[in-house]
Amino acid sequence: MHPSNASILAGDRLALARLLTQVENDTLTGRAALGELFPHTGRAHLIGVTGAPGTGKSSLVNQLARHYRLLPTPQRVAIIAVDPSSPFTGGALLGDRVRMRDLSGDPGVFIRSMAARSSLGGLAAATADMTQAFDAAGFEVILIETVGAGQSEVDIARLAHTTLVIEAPGLGDDIQAIKAGILEIADILVINKADQPGADNTERALRSMLELAHPMPHVFRHHGQFTRENLPPAADTPLWLPPVQRTVATQGSGIADLAEAIYQHRQHLEHSGEWRRREQTRLESEMETLLQETLVARWRANLSENHYQTTLAALFERRISPHAAVEQLLSPTLYA
Amino acid sequence: MHPSNASILAGDRLALARLLTQVENDTLTGRAALGELFPHTGRAHLIGVTGAPGTGKSSLVNQLARHYRLLPTPQRVAIIAVDPSSPFTGGALLGDRVRMRDLSGDPGVFIRSMAARSSLGGLAAATADMTQAFDAAGFEVILIETVGAGQSEVDIARLAHTTLVIEAPGLGDDIQAIKAGILEIADILVINKADQPGADNTERALRSMLELAHPMPHVFRHHGQFTRENLPPAADTPLWLPPVQRTVATQGSGIADLAEAIYQHRQHLEHSGEWRRREQTRLESEMETLLQETLVARWRANLSENHYQTTLAALFERRISPHAAVEQLLSPTLYA
Repeated sequence: MHPSNASILAGDRLALARLLTQVENDTLTGRAALGELFPHTGRAHLIGVTGAPGTGKSSLVNQLARHYRLLPTPQRVAIIAVDPSSPFTGGALLGDRVRMRDLSGDPGVFIRSMAARSSLGGLAAATADMTQAFDAAGFEVILIETVGAGQSEVDIARLAHTTLVIEAPGLGDDIQAIKAGILEIADILVINKADQPGADNTERALRSMLELAHPMPHVFRHHGQFTRENLPPAADTPLWLPPVQRTVATQGSGIADLAEAIYQHRQHLEHSGEWRRREQTRLESEMETLLQETLVARWRANLSENHYQTTLAALFERRISPHAAVEQLLSPTLYA
Repeated sequence: MHPSNASILAGDRLALARLLTQVENDTLTGRAALGELFPHTGRAHLIGVTGAPGTGKSSLVNQLARHYRLLPTPQRVAIIAVDPSSPFTGGALLGDRVRMRDLSGDPGVFIRSMAARSSLGGLAAATADMTQAFDAAGFEVILIETVGAGQSEVDIARLAHTTLVIEAPGLGDDIQAIKAGILEIADILVINKADQPGADNTERALRSMLELAHPMPHVFRHHGQFTRENLPPAADTPLWLPPVQRTVATQGSGIADLAEAIYQHRQHLEHSGEWRRREQTRLESEMETLLQETLVARWRANLSENHYQTTLAALFERRISPHAAVEQLLSPTLYA
């Protein structure tokens, strides 16, 4: 094993920070290091935290981190703050400074921001690699915070074991509607700023949207009993009903209950076999993405630039369709 | 040429509808037909229309379609309504029924809805193929309507020549912030429901966000004159300043001005060479996506299932990393 990897396994923060930079830039060194560290991964609990700006996500992530640090057996906590909101400017909107003030100086906490990439696929892949580095380095809890309600959040939810969707009172009905998709990825719903007016309305709206997203379980929950037409799934298929938790992150209230819900979800994942299934799905899809990239890179390395340009010119003049252009590029002996 | 393709070029709606179904299901027949029709494409103006639910997008698209139908030289108009908001339920939220009532019976209008795919890449690709079918069939204007503010809208904006971003009064500041990314893809901003309270606030918020997205031009526009420190770009680089248009789609007001702004944008694209550049970028990226899919499919066709499963098992047991798994899969002679 490379000495710097041994240092990472031994808890060396500087070596870890160097690896994270390598991973973020997707260097060969970084890839090799992750390969060596890979057998030491698979223990961390990956928790995704997503929600619109203004819901107080960063404070909530802060409070969760503090909670895990203050347990009788303190957990080591990594925070990855991902900002995919603007694929163009790549600005990082997340409240790092606030966070740094609260948590800095604690060697059991490591915070890393990541700005948008040219492609969202790239962002999810880089986040996945980063969680592996933290996982190998022995962080038991990895909080992945994202802004927004788009495909990137869905991709990052696929990466996490447990996904928290954060709402706050006072968002209009139109806004709720757009989030139908994101609700379906929620394992736990959080109403933060629950001391503000409108928290009851928000909870009502969330519960009615949950019924749309998970119709069966909520029929049970609301009506309390089963009819012949309305049977529960077989008893050996454990169900998870996304709970709605209320918090006021700025005051630290509701955090312990939220952490308990997260723990319950982990128990559910492990007992149902879902933890293992999610891990496997994630590893397979990570491998598939890499495979695709590698195949394209290998093919391109053997390609004649002239052949490529000739084909492109024919495409631009609309003499051949994109499909025909691909056929032509993949049969170099016939056309080159 | 296949007889059904000749029918499509001659304006046969039934043949076109059949092709659209083939294209949506990505069949070999559909691909072959698009290949034959491809030399007849490249004339349509692709107009993307995006914005949050509740902004009145569907009514606005309706009114634009009517406008183009009532011109002295009526344009043939296709409407593709894409709903990527929920990758899970695949529901179509768009107001098709309203639209059908207004525009049905007019042979110069063709409306098609498309629900979400398993992958957003797939959705953008299917939309691209569908615009080609309409383009070949002689539709001069193709309106592509999407819900939301995520990566899918950005992908579909890359497809369109002109992108309209629709806002409505009464969305809070938080909501505005999340849209910074989508604003950057706007060629024209529309405040619909402009008769409602708050339209002035919305316009002010949009203009200040535009300054962030396009800093230079808006400095010019706001201050009205140039200083030595504030020189315009060279005269031979035409600039497009996204205008802010107000409409009340339900009453049809502001529609003619909006159509004029769209026409101005087309003129700008053509005179600046941007039209040709966008077309070429789009064709090249469409070809690249196909190439990638084809390379993976070919590789997979020659793969031993046993070799794949053995590698996957080693990955799941974390004996080899995803990168090492790919190396192993791509060197079948060494490991098979």
